[in-house]
Amino acid sequence: MDNILDKVNTPKELKKLNIKEKEQLANEIREKVINTVSKTGGHLASNLGITELTIALHSVFNTPEDKIVWDVGHQTYVHKILTGRKDKMNTLRQLGGISGFPKIKESEYDSFDTGHSSTSISVALGMARARDIKGEKNNVLAVIGDGALTGGMALEALNDAGNSKTRLIVVLNDNEMSISKNVGGISQFLTKLRTRKFYKKSNNSIRKALEKAPKVGTKIIRVARRVKYSLKQLFLPNMFFEDLGFKYLGPVDGHDIERLEWILGLAKKEQGPVLIHAITKKGKGYKPAEENPDRFHATGSFEIETGKSKKEKKKDYSAVFGEKLVELAKENEKIVAITAAMTDGTGLKEFKEKYPNRFFDVGIAEQHAVSLAAGMAKEGLKPVVPIYSSFYQRAYDQVIHDICIESLPVVMCVDRAGIVGQDGETHQGLLDLAFFNIVPNLTIMAPKDFKELEDMLEYAITLNSPVVIRYPRGGENEKVKFEKHEEIKQGKAETIKEGRDISIIGVGKMVAKGMEMAEKLEKQGKSVELINARFLKPFDEEKIIQTITKTKNVITIEDGSVVGGLATKIKEVIAENKLENVELKCYAYPDKFIEAGNVSELEEKYLF
Amino acid sequence: MDNILDKVNTPKELKKLNIKEKEQLANEIREKVINTVSKTGGHLASNLGITELTIALHSVFNTPEDKIVWDVGHQTYVHKILTGRKDKMNTLRQLGGISGFPKIKESEYDSFDTGHSSTSISVALGMARARDIKGEKNNVLAVIGDGALTGGMALEALNDAGNSKTRLIVVLNDNEMSISKNVGGISQFLTKLRTRKFYKKSNNSIRKALEKAPKVGTKIIRVARRVKYSLKQLFLPNMFFEDLGFKYLGPVDGHDIERLEWILGLAKKEQGPVLIHAITKKGKGYKPAEENPDRFHATGSFEIETGKSKKEKKKDYSAVFGEKLVELAKENEKIVAITAAMTDGTGLKEFKEKYPNRFFDVGIAEQHAVSLAAGMAKEGLKPVVPIYSSFYQRAYDQVIHDICIESLPVVMCVDRAGIVGQDGETHQGLLDLAFFNIVPNLTIMAPKDFKELEDMLEYAITLNSPVVIRYPRGGENEKVKFEKHEEIKQGKAETIKEGRDISIIGVGKMVAKGMEMAEKLEKQGKSVELINARFLKPFDEEKIIQTITKTKNVITIEDGSVVGGLATKIKEVIAENKLENVELKCYAYPDKFIEAGNVSELEEKYLF
Repeated sequence: MDNILDKVNTPKELKKLNIKEKEQLANEIREKVINTVSKTGGHLASNLGITELTIALHSVFNTPEDKIVWDVGHQTYVHKILTGRKDKMNTLRQLGGISGFPKIKESEYDSFDTGHSSTSISVALGMARARDIKGEKNNVLAVIGDGALTGGMALEALNDAGNSKTRLIVVLNDNEMSISKNVGGISQFLTKLRTRKFYKKSNNSIRKALEKAPKVGTKIIRVARRVKYSLKQLFLPNMFFEDLGFKYLGPVDGHDIERLEWILGLAKKEQGPVLIHAITKKGKGYKPAEENPDRFHATGSFEIETGKSKKEKKKDYSAVFGEKLVELAKENEKIVAITAAMTDGTGLKEFKEKYPNRFFDVGIAEQHAVSLAAGMAKEGLKPVVPIYSSFYQRAYDQVIHDICIESLPVVMCVDRAGIVGQDGETHQGLLDLAFFNIVPNLTIMAPKDFKELEDMLEYAITLNSPVVIRYPRGGENEKVKFEKHEEIKQGKAETIKEGRDISIIGVGKMVAKGMEMAEKLEKQGKSVELINARFLKPFDEEKIIQTITKTKNVITIEDGSVVGGLATKIKEVIAENKLENVELKCYAYPDKFIEAGNVSELEEKYLF
Repeated sequence: MDNILDKVNTPKELKKLNIKEKEQLANEIREKVINTVSKTGGHLASNLGITELTIALHSVFNTPEDKIVWDVGHQTYVHKILTGRKDKMNTLRQLGGISGFPKIKESEYDSFDTGHSSTSISVALGMARARDIKGEKNNVLAVIGDGALTGGMALEALNDAGNSKTRLIVVLNDNEMSISKNVGGISQFLTKLRTRKFYKKSNNSIRKALEKAPKVGTKIIRVARRVKYSLKQLFLPNMFFEDLGFKYLGPVDGHDIERLEWILGLAKKEQGPVLIHAITKKGKGYKPAEENPDRFHATGSFEIETGKSKKEKKKDYSAVFGEKLVELAKENEKIVAITAAMTDGTGLKEFKEKYPNRFFDVGIAEQHAVSLAAGMAKEGLKPVVPIYSSFYQRAYDQVIHDICIESLPVVMCVDRAGIVGQDGETHQGLLDLAFFNIVPNLTIMAPKDFKELEDMLEYAITLNSPVVIRYPRGGENEKVKFEKHEEIKQGKAETIKEGRDISIIGVGKMVAKGMEMAEKLEKQGKSVELINARFLKPFDEEKIIQTITKTKNVITIEDGSVVGGLATKIKEVIAENKLENVELKCYAYPDKFIEAGNVSELEEKYLF
């Protein structure tokens, strides 16, 4: 057959294809996704898993009038290819290019921006209720993975939607994974649903009958199949989702376009909330990804034939954290580690293997992760909780309410702090310094390099109060090597070099940039004092006052927002202490959401 | 019989009583609770509902070695009376007195501090896992209401706990209410459980048999009852909680101490996670509270005989908000209101009655409430979402991720902002100015009085971007009457009076305090300029620079933390613009958690 994708630009052309053609289209799209991601990097396995489901959705529903809200949103490459963006896929995740997530600004087919987990049902319910209030008729769908279903707000939304009479379709894309293997009671329960005996039997027997049947008989078989589904399969009582008030349809093979279209068609006719349970395979159709979906959840560029990374993976802060924690846990049996479905991403793989009884993966459930840690700390353990910066936002109340009010000794490791690059607005970690700084009882640190992360972690474990350590995605600045590492002391900054003319005050990874800057200025004949703030809280005001009083010229540099972080702290010190005639230049990200791009491009665009 | 409570100081004495004596004790405790709350104010209905359950818990379990985590924690008055604090109950919720919530610092029997909803299962699971890691044997319990169960993190915790083999007891105190009538699919489902036919039958028939039986026969009947329970009642398959991995025991009459003790005893023997479903009646034993549990959820002082409030309820900001919203919604059909189980508290009662189709109570589920609003706003509605300040912390990520990244026009009304008084640390709204200020795309306002709240709400509805309006608990400052109200303009402060010597810059309700201060200073011969900031963001830097340049003497005054709010903004303006030789005095709460007390006492202690 000819290439079909060439002729499909929007769902309009897609709708004209027959099932066989759609199956071929699925293969072509898979190839395109693999090709694209092998060059640009990105989320691969989830897009391969959702190819047929995306085709079925755009076949059955009338997008963009019908709204699809994609939970998390990194599984929308297929959707983007089918909605007018196939020729721009080579710009995926690049500055000014196609986003790796849905973006309202990018296409009318992207009905809502996502990036964090478990929001889609709430948003879709809002859209459905808006539709009803406006007296309109369109369909609204949320497409959510089984991993995202462990996030509390997804359950809040199911609870609300299940009780309402609102017409809403939730498509559960169940691949038995979140990012790593899914965990928890809901997962166990879904496994029970998935493996129901009669489902497999009826499925297989119908399949076989269908394969053997002459063309003329298929219609009858199809009708028979529907009856079987509707009587036995679709309306079983007393299940989790039905308990919540949803009509449950499924499970259905998420790679069978015909069956998917049929069940989506059924859902479309319902007048209340429906949940479709589709079983898919992460990485489907690309062997390296099928065999290792974790590795291909999010990947850099790779060789298609072997699946091997093109770039050698360099050591990063997460790995340094993980190794040091394993070392500390050997000596200290009180240390436990908690992750919210990010064992690999946060560097906890070795910890998990070495200390399985002290390791807890709670699923995509940051709120619970933090309060669980609080309970453990109250009973004398030393919980360490690495969570990405932008996901700590999800547990903000728990940090305040369960950890900080009682000042419990939990070590909160804020990974992916600062600009993260290609994942864009929803994933940049630019706010954590600011939102943690305002919480009483916290100690907040940021290391200038790997060694200092190790020192800070070791120090944090000794503290009897809550600590935040924030560190970036990726590795050390390769141009700068710090020779000395002063002992960590509570609330004390480190003077890296003394000078008379200009004070450069940096925090975290930006201290290295400060060093580069200092060397440049020194070449221009300036005497530069370089200070590593180390602690944002408690803040070393004494040292800051000394250096400013001396130089009257301050440069601050941080990997975060200009509002509420280091820049703000320095300004407060200046105003409170009436330090006069001070030249001040703050390198920090502006008070706006920062788009996707390479870290170096974004730094150039916004900082330097 | 003699007074029993006189002889019971701790669970040790309680354990010696027989069931009849415990029943009398329950009555005496109820009386004490009613007496106490009628004077001090506080949470009444929930404590009357949990009296027998608390007695049973302390009878069966060995507190404080066994740990009880009380969800929300306002239902712990009975617990406090039974654990050495009965003679201090007259100091309830007062500065330096007994807290209205569990406090580790107050008693070894208070195993964890609570205040916000839905945290108890996470914390208890943390404690249980800590116990196992330490090789200890104590029991850990979470006591949680059916309302709190709609909070997503409770479900995250059930999911994690249900899958673990951790020995943990969750007591579901099901009174069919959260604060107002409970909502959602979970509630519907619990109703199904509650009303199961055979439960009522077996219950009643056993009851009757028991009542008629001669003393000698009761033991046999008790055994028979147990068998019936264990075979039919306790181990039904395919239920919500069992799906999640819990053993479900119940439902059980939560006012029947004997039966409660027996079922708690059963739970104690389990080796994995157990959920006990106890049915209780909010307000039990006090007719005005039984008939009107909403009104007696949290109450001021009242007359015991009639239940009438001693103080006349004065008009407050919540009521002004509610009335104005009803007025605006009459003209604008796009306006919808969303509450997280706080219809009355946020002033939405009339809106609910007048516009039932545009009113949504989502249960205790702030995260979902905010993202639901985002979905509605995307589709052209104008959602207004009043949530208490300290509960907006729970939806912080959703505000950033779902509303602000796309700059959707949701009106977020932050009620109970600033110091709230007697509910203490967990409920003070001192952080919202700071944590909202750092979020891009937000407009943040605070009104100086009722009229300005009306004007701001009217203005907010016209904006096409996200807005925060924050206002306090209670009413206007009665000593100050503002005559003029300039039109609200984006990012513009209001000059209330002009002067030469001192600039007083206030925000929100504290502008009135600023007026008092100005009048005092004027009596001392100073010329005072009083500025109502109105907007924290965008901030009227121009006006601030002008006034500071003129007076060189600034007083800031705000109902929030000294970190990150108005004080910080002013300091930034001073440093950024090199305003020199400026005298600065900031009235704001220190960077610590503020305990319970009257608002005026706390203002005196911390501000003035």
